[in-house]
Amino acid sequence: MGIQKLQVGMAGLGRVGKFHAMNFLQHTPRAELVAAFTPDPTEIAWGRVNLEPHGVTLYDNYDEMLKHPGLQAVAIGTATSVHAEEAIKAIEADLHVLCEKPLSIHIDVCKAVVAAAKKKPHLKVMCGFSRRFDESYREVHSKIEQGLIGRPSIIRSQTCDKLDPSGFFVEYAAWSGGVFVDMAVHDIDLTLWFFGDDIIPKSISAHGITAVQPELKKHKDYDNAVGIVEFQNGKIAYYYCSRMMAHGQEDTTEIIGTEGKLAVNNNPQRNLVNYYHSGGITREVPPNFMGRFGPAFVQEANDFTAACLDNTPLPMKLTNAVKAVEIGAYLQEALVTGKQLHFDEIGRRIEKAQL
Amino acid sequence: MGIQKLQVGMAGLGRVGKFHAMNFLQHTPRAELVAAFTPDPTEIAWGRVNLEPHGVTLYDNYDEMLKHPGLQAVAIGTATSVHAEEAIKAIEADLHVLCEKPLSIHIDVCKAVVAAAKKKPHLKVMCGFSRRFDESYREVHSKIEQGLIGRPSIIRSQTCDKLDPSGFFVEYAAWSGGVFVDMAVHDIDLTLWFFGDDIIPKSISAHGITAVQPELKKHKDYDNAVGIVEFQNGKIAYYYCSRMMAHGQEDTTEIIGTEGKLAVNNNPQRNLVNYYHSGGITREVPPNFMGRFGPAFVQEANDFTAACLDNTPLPMKLTNAVKAVEIGAYLQEALVTGKQLHFDEIGRRIEKAQL
Amino acid sequence: MGIQKLQVGMAGLGRVGKFHAMNFLQHTPRAELVAAFTPDPTEIAWGRVNLEPHGVTLYDNYDEMLKHPGLQAVAIGTATSVHAEEAIKAIEADLHVLCEKPLSIHIDVCKAVVAAAKKKPHLKVMCGFSRRFDESYREVHSKIEQGLIGRPSIIRSQTCDKLDPSGFFVEYAAWSGGVFVDMAVHDIDLTLWFFGDDIIPKSISAHGITAVQPELKKHKDYDNAVGIVEFQNGKIAYYYCSRMMAHGQEDTTEIIGTEGKLAVNNNPQRNLVNYYHSGGITREVPPNFMGRFGPAFVQEANDFTAACLDNTPLPMKLTNAVKAVEIGAYLQEALVTGKQLHFDEIGRRIEKAQL
Amino acid sequence: MGIQKLQVGMAGLGRVGKFHAMNFLQHTPRAELVAAFTPDPTEIAWGRVNLEPHGVTLYDNYDEMLKHPGLQAVAIGTATSVHAEEAIKAIEADLHVLCEKPLSIHIDVCKAVVAAAKKKPHLKVMCGFSRRFDESYREVHSKIEQGLIGRPSIIRSQTCDKLDPSGFFVEYAAWSGGVFVDMAVHDIDLTLWFFGDDIIPKSISAHGITAVQPELKKHKDYDNAVGIVEFQNGKIAYYYCSRMMAHGQEDTTEIIGTEGKLAVNNNPQRNLVNYYHSGGITREVPPNFMGRFGPAFVQEANDFTAACLDNTPLPMKLTNAVKAVEIGAYLQEALVTGKQLHFDEIGRRIEKAQL
Repeated sequence: MGIQKLQVGMAGLGRVGKFHAMNFLQHTPRAELVAAFTPDPTEIAWGRVNLEPHGVTLYDNYDEMLKHPGLQAVAIGTATSVHAEEAIKAIEADLHVLCEKPLSIHIDVCKAVVAAAKKKPHLKVMCGFSRRFDESYREVHSKIEQGLIGRPSIIRSQTCDKLDPSGFFVEYAAWSGGVFVDMAVHDIDLTLWFFGDDIIPKSISAHGITAVQPELKKHKDYDNAVGIVEFQNGKIAYYYCSRMMAHGQEDTTEIIGTEGKLAVNNNPQRNLVNYYHSGGITREVPPNFMGRFGPAFVQEANDFTAACLDNTPLPMKLTNAVKAVEIGAYLQEALVTGKQLHFDEIGRRIEKAQL
Repeated sequence: MGIQKLQVGMAGLGRVGKFHAMNFLQHTPRAELVAAFTPDPTEIAWGRVNLEPHGVTLYDNYDEMLKHPGLQAVAIGTATSVHAEEAIKAIEADLHVLCEKPLSIHIDVCKAVVAAAKKKPHLKVMCGFSRRFDESYREVHSKIEQGLIGRPSIIRSQTCDKLDPSGFFVEYAAWSGGVFVDMAVHDIDLTLWFFGDDIIPKSISAHGITAVQPELKKHKDYDNAVGIVEFQNGKIAYYYCSRMMAHGQEDTTEIIGTEGKLAVNNNPQRNLVNYYHSGGITREVPPNFMGRFGPAFVQEANDFTAACLDNTPLPMKLTNAVKAVEIGAYLQEALVTGKQLHFDEIGRRIEKAQL
Repeated sequence: MGIQKLQVGMAGLGRVGKFHAMNFLQHTPRAELVAAFTPDPTEIAWGRVNLEPHGVTLYDNYDEMLKHPGLQAVAIGTATSVHAEEAIKAIEADLHVLCEKPLSIHIDVCKAVVAAAKKKPHLKVMCGFSRRFDESYREVHSKIEQGLIGRPSIIRSQTCDKLDPSGFFVEYAAWSGGVFVDMAVHDIDLTLWFFGDDIIPKSISAHGITAVQPELKKHKDYDNAVGIVEFQNGKIAYYYCSRMMAHGQEDTTEIIGTEGKLAVNNNPQRNLVNYYHSGGITREVPPNFMGRFGPAFVQEANDFTAACLDNTPLPMKLTNAVKAVEIGAYLQEALVTGKQLHFDEIGRRIEKAQL
Repeated sequence: MGIQKLQVGMAGLGRVGKFHAMNFLQHTPRAELVAAFTPDPTEIAWGRVNLEPHGVTLYDNYDEMLKHPGLQAVAIGTATSVHAEEAIKAIEADLHVLCEKPLSIHIDVCKAVVAAAKKKPHLKVMCGFSRRFDESYREVHSKIEQGLIGRPSIIRSQTCDKLDPSGFFVEYAAWSGGVFVDMAVHDIDLTLWFFGDDIIPKSISAHGITAVQPELKKHKDYDNAVGIVEFQNGKIAYYYCSRMMAHGQEDTTEIIGTEGKLAVNNNPQRNLVNYYHSGGITREVPPNFMGRFGPAFVQEANDFTAACLDNTPLPMKLTNAVKAVEIGAYLQEALVTGKQLHFDEIGRRIEKAQL
């Protein structure tokens, strides 16, 4: 078997960590999941059943996992608060890194990861934004590149979750960075992709409500929020995030150009079935991001693996991941303070009074 | 008021008659409904309330109505069994005729109407097939004429009614001519329109079931039937009729050409609303043909009126109405006898053994 | 003919005026168009051909038309700048009024109309917002009333016109009041309908660009604009207006409640045709508001007529028309000044510094 | 690595063989592709590059491959004419078999495979019908089982390929068994799934044309064909096969029950993108069966593997694969002879004259 497979270790075996682990184990032919780390005994128990029989070594200590013989890459799916630290340690251990978004909800921490990565240019360090690996978004990008819509000028993008009646997201709000950092960061990343990652905000506004979870206010967060980012080059993106959908996950994006428009997921659907009954015609909707973006996560694992093994460029820059969080944090600030933010032509904050 | 309005009399004030009467009264600016006939006292009572105050004279005798001063045209919406007799009388009284489909379920009776009309070429005599006046079907016809799909080769067309749980259609089957004559006649008429009205059947097959109304068997009819008509010129039409739809009226047509396809109503919908709820996304469907084809009936009344007033050609030939019933009757025969029918190149019946 | 018909005079025979005139002439059975006014000789010439033969008296003087014998109601479709003056004159002449939106782009002028109407409570004075008469929006309203989506909390609504390459809208911007007053006023009116007309803004933000017509800047207007209105009662509406659509008119609205969502026109379409070809499957889109809302205008004429004849309530309050323009003007101010606007609990403007 | 993986050998490396091989190699975690056979030097060369480096041993002799050490299962994707022989040899070598459809175009040959399999009940022998593994069809089956549409009564199902302008399918027709055996066999298999595999035909009709490839006539085949199968238990299936689609693969199925309807793929689409342009709104369609059913083939490989390893029942009976071909062959006979076929209550052919 002359085929070299990327030796991957997984950090974190929570909801998204399990998902990544299974993708590397089963759906990434050029990678081999050889190690997994979690500090959580329940997750270790899950790993005993689901990973260990496949030859995956389990660790309850991250530093130990980094020393796993032959390890080449780490996928990080732990709690956001430790993403950056773990990413930096992996980089310092000379390992490629695929880190779940966001690197951190704090810009300076994000920047520390970028700085660490910069010192090891031979490593592939990627913060995964799943939509970049989705077939539909990729086709949209390709059609924009072909000039099919003229100059992209307006983006409308929303990340809308099915209501979780357990209210889990209230506690989550304590450390998520808020809806714009946690949810809209995907829409912002798409904006960087479709408008160009050199765009600079000109002004930012945001408004939110707590329609189903007033308790969110204690964390200065909202269950529905709308924000607008106007850019210096005559483009606008506007975003809607919600945790209140009755029907399922509904992440929709429209890119409106001077000569046409491209839309992704204007008709959410779980599959190709329509049910005709006395009340009309009904189709179902994916219940969560895995239902919508499952194949994109698989694609991400494969693309990351290929970049590591073949030393080819990653499909997205690490600095974009920082920029997306930065704009998300501005939106969150505008949302919480009830103030419009303004920026000069090189992106420095200015007070409106100065204008 | 120098504008001449077509003086119209309505025969029949049942479900479809009322509909025509109101269209001529309210939605046909160039026509004036001046008279209405019905033998039914309940319908006369309806007319007293809804028509008489607008200056419409009511008659319980058809022949009397024909003598209404200044009458120029008659719209016939009575029971099918008297369509032909009434049409012929009107023609003989030198009146234009708009007759609900079919002229008759008997071909020779249909042909008698055509013969009567032929003697008065200055009269406009039309058997109304509502889909010819529907905006979507008209656009399809126009796109076919533009060559957008190459040579039209296959037509799939269905007429599917919402289930009427009263089972009214069982008694109706006694004199409707059967599902292919009563329902598929619309699809056959579309076939004549899109394939050309000179097409000649080559062979015909049909099969049916009684899924919800076994009592239909006493009238040799079916609540669901599928039929295929193969034409001499290398074209095929296949039809589905049903009286069993849970969701509403679903009349769908596809015309498949050598270079493309046109479809009408592949996504039935009552309006532009979608309702998103915990079970998915639902849209409603028109409950009946008036919900789907209401505007087409209005267009029909207006087009007929214009043809009468301006002496312009009608949008469809009267002979087509005969041909559609003829093919419908063949399908019904194939359905009831369980035999495939065959025709020679000029359309004469042949026995398969002769082939 | 004992039926009384509402005697209507039409003011203005430009694009929308012609449309109203033909609706009252042909599609409003209980109304009779008896008079029409326009100062424009070209429009008079059109009236000679299209109205006069139907018994409509033409006037080139508005005041003269108001004296037309037996006149009961006036429909106003002239330039916006004279709407209010004409409406007030008609009210003073004791005539019912159906006025095209907006009453005026100036709030105080709008209010003068309201004051005039208040003095004549027996008159029906309506400022027509066509979407209130659209079948789909009416069904949405009904479903909200039935509680199908819980508490309506977020509205997304857009008014997007097909690009007019003549650039006509640049000159039009000089007196239109700007995109939010001219276009979004429809979306704002829907907001009042679906959220309740007693809602009070809390804060307003807006951003715009000139993607295709930089000349708009001279009139301080934009060809694409996005705005957010946060209301005091924990609800948000966000709007998008554009004059840049390649594909046609696309007016879409979503009302998101705590338990469901209703969407109107998420899949714009001109009719029920789909064209399948080597590039995929294509459907067409209405080219303008008449293609989308034609039947709503007919409904409006009929509903107005019924209210006048039967002395029943109008389907919408005149004060809403003022409130919609007022919110539109706030959005426009936020757009042009680049400032977020704030309001106290009874709707008075406050400076953020005061908060 | 205590996990046992199913040791699989692939027979055939043509278009569908390559596809299966890659699925077993990369997307079937519990299987290991260890061997591949093809008599074709070009395909061997492809295997050298794409399979050998992954440890797959290549064979140009099928019998030799069957002796590959540790081999447990064979997937057969060679030419249809050798399917049965290879399947029987594999069974005799005590190997599980996944065979591409059809087992053979000759019923007696199909039956020989069934007989061979019957002697080795411990082996899993499956003839793959990809739609049985498709998420949408599975959901339809589940909803039918839940009783959502009452009693399934009518099935409409079509298999429509994008036109291959090379005309390859003309030569292919020489040994494909004809359109109903080659294409509609999928629709027939769905019928067995949704109506029950004990259904017995009552009568069969079929009609076809050669709209784009008149040369097909030399092989007694057609490029478009429609057929109806009426079953003894009051159910009907009707099928349409075409090789003439301009837009792509369009395989649509509707199951109509007494209380509702389920439809799969009424709106074909390649992904979730809609492109809005001056000609309307366009979406693209998968170009071939792999674009539509790719994930179903992966599911099939995984389900087969699980059944072999865990000795659980296969998701479909081998006898169904014979029955589907048998009904397909009847349809083809009806098509070619222009005769309607009739069957008695236990499925024996009868002449209509006997009825």
